[in-house]
Amino acid sequence: MIERSERKIPESAVPRLSRYYRVLLEFGEKEVISSEELAALAGSNAAQIRRDLTYFGQFGRPGLGYNTANLRQALLRILGIDRVWNVALVGVGHLGGALLGYRGFERHGFRFIAAFDRDPRKIGRRVEGVPVMPLGRLPAVAAREKIEMAVLTVPALFAQEAAELLVKAGVKAILNFAPVRLKVPERTTVRNIDMAVELERLSFLTRGKT
Amino acid sequence: MIERSERKIPESAVPRLSRYYRVLLEFGEKEVISSEELAALAGSNAAQIRRDLTYFGQFGRPGLGYNTANLRQALLRILGIDRVWNVALVGVGHLGGALLGYRGFERHGFRFIAAFDRDPRKIGRRVEGVPVMPLGRLPAVAAREKIEMAVLTVPALFAQEAAELLVKAGVKAILNFAPVRLKVPERTTVRNIDMAVELERLSFLTRGKT
Repeated sequence: MIERSERKIPESAVPRLSRYYRVLLEFGEKEVISSEELAALAGSNAAQIRRDLTYFGQFGRPGLGYNTANLRQALLRILGIDRVWNVALVGVGHLGGALLGYRGFERHGFRFIAAFDRDPRKIGRRVEGVPVMPLGRLPAVAAREKIEMAVLTVPALFAQEAAELLVKAGVKAILNFAPVRLKVPERTTVRNIDMAVELERLSFLTRGKT
Repeated sequence: MIERSERKIPESAVPRLSRYYRVLLEFGEKEVISSEELAALAGSNAAQIRRDLTYFGQFGRPGLGYNTANLRQALLRILGIDRVWNVALVGVGHLGGALLGYRGFERHGFRFIAAFDRDPRKIGRRVEGVPVMPLGRLPAVAAREKIEMAVLTVPALFAQEAAELLVKAGVKAILNFAPVRLKVPERTTVRNIDMAVELERLSFLTRGKT
């Protein structure tokens, strides 16, 4: 259940909420945290934090700070990680293999259940403990394992086809590393990470300094 | 040389400019492109494109569209990729190795010159053709090869130390994959990619739909 007010949280606030959550994870057992403390640890400022936290109702009491356990629980719920997400990876190349081995996912509630590839030499193997299967098994496995999220690390030319298979298999959200704009139904959420675009953002920001 | 007006381009426009640039790369030899054509190919709308392109002066003529060669050249310059950037990678693990092998970087003007690691078993090898060196050689190699950009793929605990070495070696921009807020001088540009945060953004956007 999502409260009405939470629906208004802008997507742009999400990376900050993720950061607050990480700070609280490492904050230990202290009962209360002030917005100033949270700001210092999250590399933000207290006003921004107070603004972000008002999105989901009243937490803190002025001058008293936030109850850390409540705040942590609220952030979990808002970020949608108060549950485990079963995740499929499609495309077991270099990047795909690296992501399968990334411990940070499991720690935050994202669990790779299966990986899929077209290369018969990869099928039947396990990569970082995750079984690699032929793409044809995606619908059955996704249904059985309740896979709702996928990470797409296939070559650009194959990305649209793979995305359509994922949508058909009931996957609701795709983290796409292929440098391609995927065409998917509106109900499917896509986030694109294009490594070259990230470096271009850096060069844009740096060019004036050289 | 950057023209005065270009300094005002907001960072948030950069991924869109990158996309326009990619569309133009594939657009072939046609002399003129309309904002409607560009919008269709870039998955945007014509009004957004006209707004973005006014940031860097007058290009198009109303009703006539944009000269593709000029527009491509302007985007190259604005994105800071009308030159080659020499890049170092620090941390030759799974992800680092995958990024060294990513062909999209070189195509957009980012060239991995050297990789650095602390593990003596990795030093002296080549990964995807890039030599792996001990971190102690970073200052000399960065100076000799004019390395101004770095990709940081070390474990979280070592990220701050590695960032400080990079700053000392004259690196101006860091693409950071470690789930850590780096403390660097203001003149150094940092972009963070935290894979778990990306999945959290997906789960945030998807939680209402499940």
